[in-house]
Amino acid sequence: MAGFRDLGFARVDTDRERRQGAPEAILAEGKAPEEIGAIARAMLEDRAGSVLVTRADADAHEDARARLAWVARGVPETRGLVAIVSGGTSDLPVVTETRVRAELLGTSVVVHQDAGVAGLHRLEPAIEDIERADCVVVIAGQDAALASVVGGLVAAPVIGVPTSTGYGAAFGGVSALLSMLSSCAAGLAVVNIDDGFGAGTIAARIARSAVAA
Amino acid sequence: MAGFRDLGFARVDTDRERRQGAPEAILAEGKAPEEIGAIARAMLEDRAGSVLVTRADADAHEDARARLAWVARGVPETRGLVAIVSGGTSDLPVVTETRVRAELLGTSVVVHQDAGVAGLHRLEPAIEDIERADCVVVIAGQDAALASVVGGLVAAPVIGVPTSTGYGAAFGGVSALLSMLSSCAAGLAVVNIDDGFGAGTIAARIARSAVAA
Amino acid sequence: MAGFRDLGFARVDTDRERRQGAPEAILAEGKAPEEIGAIARAMLEDRAGSVLVTRADADAHEDARARLAWVARGVPETRGLVAIVSGGTSDLPVVTETRVRAELLGTSVVVHQDAGVAGLHRLEPAIEDIERADCVVVIAGQDAALASVVGGLVAAPVIGVPTSTGYGAAFGGVSALLSMLSSCAAGLAVVNIDDGFGAGTIAARIARSAVAA
Amino acid sequence: MAGFRDLGFARVDTDRERRQGAPEAILAEGKAPEEIGAIARAMLEDRAGSVLVTRADADAHEDARARLAWVARGVPETRGLVAIVSGGTSDLPVVTETRVRAELLGTSVVVHQDAGVAGLHRLEPAIEDIERADCVVVIAGQDAALASVVGGLVAAPVIGVPTSTGYGAAFGGVSALLSMLSSCAAGLAVVNIDDGFGAGTIAARIARSAVAA
Amino acid sequence: MAGFRDLGFARVDTDRERRQGAPEAILAEGKAPEEIGAIARAMLEDRAGSVLVTRADADAHEDARARLAWVARGVPETRGLVAIVSGGTSDLPVVTETRVRAELLGTSVVVHQDAGVAGLHRLEPAIEDIERADCVVVIAGQDAALASVVGGLVAAPVIGVPTSTGYGAAFGGVSALLSMLSSCAAGLAVVNIDDGFGAGTIAARIARSAVAA
Amino acid sequence: MAGFRDLGFARVDTDRERRQGAPEAILAEGKAPEEIGAIARAMLEDRAGSVLVTRADADAHEDARARLAWVARGVPETRGLVAIVSGGTSDLPVVTETRVRAELLGTSVVVHQDAGVAGLHRLEPAIEDIERADCVVVIAGQDAALASVVGGLVAAPVIGVPTSTGYGAAFGGVSALLSMLSSCAAGLAVVNIDDGFGAGTIAARIARSAVAA
Amino acid sequence: MAGFRDLGFARVDTDRERRQGAPEAILAEGKAPEEIGAIARAMLEDRAGSVLVTRADADAHEDARARLAWVARGVPETRGLVAIVSGGTSDLPVVTETRVRAELLGTSVVVHQDAGVAGLHRLEPAIEDIERADCVVVIAGQDAALASVVGGLVAAPVIGVPTSTGYGAAFGGVSALLSMLSSCAAGLAVVNIDDGFGAGTIAARIARSAVAA
Amino acid sequence: MAGFRDLGFARVDTDRERRQGAPEAILAEGKAPEEIGAIARAMLEDRAGSVLVTRADADAHEDARARLAWVARGVPETRGLVAIVSGGTSDLPVVTETRVRAELLGTSVVVHQDAGVAGLHRLEPAIEDIERADCVVVIAGQDAALASVVGGLVAAPVIGVPTSTGYGAAFGGVSALLSMLSSCAAGLAVVNIDDGFGAGTIAARIARSAVAA
Repeated sequence: MAGFRDLGFARVDTDRERRQGAPEAILAEGKAPEEIGAIARAMLEDRAGSVLVTRADADAHEDARARLAWVARGVPETRGLVAIVSGGTSDLPVVTETRVRAELLGTSVVVHQDAGVAGLHRLEPAIEDIERADCVVVIAGQDAALASVVGGLVAAPVIGVPTSTGYGAAFGGVSALLSMLSSCAAGLAVVNIDDGFGAGTIAARIARSAVAA
Repeated sequence: MAGFRDLGFARVDTDRERRQGAPEAILAEGKAPEEIGAIARAMLEDRAGSVLVTRADADAHEDARARLAWVARGVPETRGLVAIVSGGTSDLPVVTETRVRAELLGTSVVVHQDAGVAGLHRLEPAIEDIERADCVVVIAGQDAALASVVGGLVAAPVIGVPTSTGYGAAFGGVSALLSMLSSCAAGLAVVNIDDGFGAGTIAARIARSAVAA
Repeated sequence: MAGFRDLGFARVDTDRERRQGAPEAILAEGKAPEEIGAIARAMLEDRAGSVLVTRADADAHEDARARLAWVARGVPETRGLVAIVSGGTSDLPVVTETRVRAELLGTSVVVHQDAGVAGLHRLEPAIEDIERADCVVVIAGQDAALASVVGGLVAAPVIGVPTSTGYGAAFGGVSALLSMLSSCAAGLAVVNIDDGFGAGTIAARIARSAVAA
Repeated sequence: MAGFRDLGFARVDTDRERRQGAPEAILAEGKAPEEIGAIARAMLEDRAGSVLVTRADADAHEDARARLAWVARGVPETRGLVAIVSGGTSDLPVVTETRVRAELLGTSVVVHQDAGVAGLHRLEPAIEDIERADCVVVIAGQDAALASVVGGLVAAPVIGVPTSTGYGAAFGGVSALLSMLSSCAAGLAVVNIDDGFGAGTIAARIARSAVAA
Repeated sequence: MAGFRDLGFARVDTDRERRQGAPEAILAEGKAPEEIGAIARAMLEDRAGSVLVTRADADAHEDARARLAWVARGVPETRGLVAIVSGGTSDLPVVTETRVRAELLGTSVVVHQDAGVAGLHRLEPAIEDIERADCVVVIAGQDAALASVVGGLVAAPVIGVPTSTGYGAAFGGVSALLSMLSSCAAGLAVVNIDDGFGAGTIAARIARSAVAA
Repeated sequence: MAGFRDLGFARVDTDRERRQGAPEAILAEGKAPEEIGAIARAMLEDRAGSVLVTRADADAHEDARARLAWVARGVPETRGLVAIVSGGTSDLPVVTETRVRAELLGTSVVVHQDAGVAGLHRLEPAIEDIERADCVVVIAGQDAALASVVGGLVAAPVIGVPTSTGYGAAFGGVSALLSMLSSCAAGLAVVNIDDGFGAGTIAARIARSAVAA
Repeated sequence: MAGFRDLGFARVDTDRERRQGAPEAILAEGKAPEEIGAIARAMLEDRAGSVLVTRADADAHEDARARLAWVARGVPETRGLVAIVSGGTSDLPVVTETRVRAELLGTSVVVHQDAGVAGLHRLEPAIEDIERADCVVVIAGQDAALASVVGGLVAAPVIGVPTSTGYGAAFGGVSALLSMLSSCAAGLAVVNIDDGFGAGTIAARIARSAVAA
Repeated sequence: MAGFRDLGFARVDTDRERRQGAPEAILAEGKAPEEIGAIARAMLEDRAGSVLVTRADADAHEDARARLAWVARGVPETRGLVAIVSGGTSDLPVVTETRVRAELLGTSVVVHQDAGVAGLHRLEPAIEDIERADCVVVIAGQDAALASVVGGLVAAPVIGVPTSTGYGAAFGGVSALLSMLSSCAAGLAVVNIDDGFGAGTIAARIARSAVAA
């Protein structure tokens, strides 16, 4: 058995869920609609627990703003808790992508939005949740200072997601990315700009294994 | 109790170990030797389990090449397993920094060096270890392709550490950093260039909680 | 004889096919449709073996997605084999541009798509072809790790084409470009981002001379 | 009267103190020692209130670590209060340059060092001072998150000074600079990397006029 | 009392005006129209003196070109004078954003537009105003040389706003930003590219406290 | 007389033609149509020899592709010769902008297009003209190698104009700009990317004074 | 048999010469002298045809300026011809590294140095050699215009090596790299900055297979 | 006659002075002392009017600070006037390189140093000279605002030389370079960072032809 399906234009990694505990996702950008459909069908035929399409066009009906479409057939039993904290209202699409991915992988998720450090007291309602979570995801653009503040508060692993919100010297997420990477808060690791999918994946892995024992 | 010691030139965060399970470390660059000494003494007087000095000058006798000095007084009981895989021989100092930090935080560490993808068969002896580890750290410079390859093989969380090895378009670690950040292997998060300290911290957190139950 | 046709707005290098074994191509971007037409006619009147228009507008009917139009009148007798391996489905337009250019220059081409390293086993069906090819072209975006992996496997020259697929820290192909340039796999050289035309040209030159003897 | 002294190699702006309330300073880098001496003498002969040499060589005896030398002959009567808060111990030279410049211009200065956000409680002793200051200067490297946190707490103008401390993705102060520039805390403006001189100048101007009435 | 309103998607910092003397503003980009409306209502219900929406869509009727909408209910009594000088006609939207913000915070504003240094005599009519202002804001794109020229003339604090006007090596405001940051005119601090909102905020703070006595 | 017209939104430098021998031009981007009209009328009323609008919208009828509109009322008597050589057909708009500006300033212009170095023999017909010209303007994108080749052939001053043609690593003209700036051909100076206006201005100045005697 | 030697700190790819026709080389930077010695011994014990150490310290006696040391025990029978053309005298170390590597792999090499395009006639003596070569390597810094000129003349594959010679906007080889990547001469592929080793490897592969038949 | 001398390691362009009116210069960096000597001898033997060595080591006795050595045997009769204006004292080495090169090519040079715009009145003594010069060279680092100010005052062609003076966001001359390139003063063209040699060359060409008649 090859472990993948050869569709000619694509080799669908049908072995990934077995090997890595999480099915491949479909990045819609650069793919034709019929290609996306064919890949999704191949995954479902090979018993993927779920299929998630990211960066989908406007016709994505599960969540248009986050540009997500998904089919959840066999989500694993829920284990572990991921806490998501975001810096501003505009980070919502990335919050959604992170949450959906983590939930499809079988994790509980709690979300606190718009807790940026320009008004630190807004972070207070999130403290209890981020302290009891098995993994914390911080989603923030511009200066991304929230990642360092949260990173200095908790004992759990922290995953930072820089976002492309902001203008000028925010440089489409580069400032947030550099800020997170050079954060003085140890225990923080970073994924790509706007990469809710990647953050949801590693956060779910961490959270699910944390209670596995 | 303020939770820190005020030395005038420094406010030592003596509360950090209680709050985050890991003591503050001392980045030697930009600090005078007597300042480093004073901070270390303050930490030990306030019962830090260990003190780790990174980027120390040549007189660091614990490990001169990795520029590390440390005092390990009360390392926690060992839990969990971190597997470190590096791309090349020149990545050794970062490997050491990661390993020492993780061990000081109470984790077992297994190391496989020089397993770069230009000769993929050299990765084979590492497969068993990276599959049984609670967290895998990939340390690589230049194209950092090893991170994507390892990231596609395992179910555990993967932490990537881009290194500044290489010349020309390696740009002091920038190529490796960008490569890891845009890796198509989900489940991978990245720390700063050459940041073995940060990688060791988050890897130990993940690994220790993985078996916590 | 000047070796070119002066159309006023353009000096068509009608001598290039004789001098370099391959006719000039027409990059459509920045040119008016009637200019493209006039250049093509001049080339055909001066007996170009083929005319290839790249980055053409939507009315390109030979291949709309790759934005290619072409006329193949006198393709040379086929010699040599080029193997193309791509990292993902979204790289298809660049794959097509590379393949068409190489075929127009008189080379056989075999293509393996979507063999990215996040699922290395998907590369296996390509192994035989890349080992027997006279030149291998690796087309990949994001981390472009595939180039290093392939570059470490074969004895033939490898040409890397970084693509602009991906988002965030992929930076429109810059990450892939830097990754390929700093690859630890010797024997790999790189062309411009998305430059299937350039890759097809040099690959065909290498492959055709390999069997010339 | 020309308003400057022409030394041939330099035109010393002896009118600046009258025009702008602050004498010109001497950036030592790129100047020969005898040139620095000649400029200083010209300033003193034209009754400058003080002469400050920045980035001086090791023989600067006023403050070797901050590379400062100065002569204070006629410092104006002290007015206003500037509060300086720094992120880490390594920022000390920039703290000193800011403090000395502001004091030479006739302002009181209070300093709180090593209050980085990775241990937010260390900022608490500074709160009272930053709330009563006429201008707050935040000096921080790496992610410079401290600037946003302080910027969200006070009503006074805040001047940020990114520093070149840190390694890797700190990029010699660029990350700190971008972070400060894209801070979500309004009321914050930024000077050049490590530019304690500029920060001291504008802070003193703001603080002195704040109580001028 | 929490000091903020939790709308689920947003935590409106209703305490900010009390804490910092200036209400939060609403950056429209990335927010849905109904979200903007809800935030504005929450601010008004909690007695914000004014509500300012920046980067609004075309339906902003207060000032479409500057993309501003605002409600001014309780502007503080006017104190202090801010002088705005701009380099070119195209900087108008940023001039407007700076002026409106400063006026909403209770400051008088005088504006001199199109005084770029390529024709220095055009700056003359502004001299009297910039010399009597409590704070000067210089708004300029391209080389932003105007900031250095003005910065060398006045004794008041100068705030620079680089703008994204220009093409080619203007790089969307980066040239202007770097030019302002490395200006040899001390006493100048800089805000983000096109950030009239930030400039208006800090300028109003400086100007209002200058006459406070 | 102030030497400028104050239109409120603009201060038209009506003295420039007297002072510098060339009237101000109007960069249309960022200006409203009525503003452009008002500036043009003010210039003409103050006896500008010509009015040139660059980067105009599609309704520019003098030359739509180069986005130019102009009124030539009092072009000075023609003196001197400027030779323009361009690398490719796509550089046409910049060629036109350079030519029109230089002609409006009273210089003869001769143009050779599409003489890129990939087919060096296409440069031959231009040799005679570039050798007799008083100033040579080289307009090229991508690698801009033509500037170095021409720069090594002639004794006249050479002005390079990098253009934004090309894709991928051409980076919108940055590659061409860097290539020209680091050219080993002495006697070459460079203007902004796509800045035909600037090139036409300095070239006309050089050429007109060359024959002035 | 694993195909590599595990030295603990290194896994020497002893299978590479069989698999890829060329032995691994040793990049000295970042390795201790005893490590370099141990790797070299392991390679020789496993019958490597040659051992090449690049970026060696001053004690490299085979070629100090190019920082090369090597042992040539079993160089393959010479086949094919590589022509190297360099832009300037300062490119000599990269020329040497390219030549030595290609010769160790069993290829004839002919070298033409200092043929930069600022004096195109200096290229003439090289024409015959580059026309008969099986592969041409162009080594140039600064604007690297030589690569485009040569790339437009020959029918053989061309490998470009940007060098770090030059200052200012040469940016350590970045200008040369970008220039080569965006060259309009098709049939040109590029290796890393100063990477003579990589260029020698791919050039030898191309040249040796060209006459294999 | 080939028009060059082949020294093996170098092909000295002995035809350049005839072809371009100015002899080749020798950039010392990257060349061995004996190579520099051999090139100089070859030039003198072939009757170069002068030999100029730039970036020479400390043993350069003509001007150590500017790192220049030269032999002037047959400087052409002086024609035309170049005016050099520099922004600060630290720009002296570049001023010297520009002046020496221009004088060796047979032009009169007048120099005004340290006339930066932070004290605009210091520019006044230079006004008369820059108005009567045939070409003006502006040499400035940091924000390089001086180039725009001078560029707006004169009718002669202006050549800008960005210098690497300054720190932080001056980025080794990049800020000055970008500022000059995006200057709103038309009639200004720019050479490489610190490239006094290039500026002296083009300025002398312009100035000498200006009075040639």
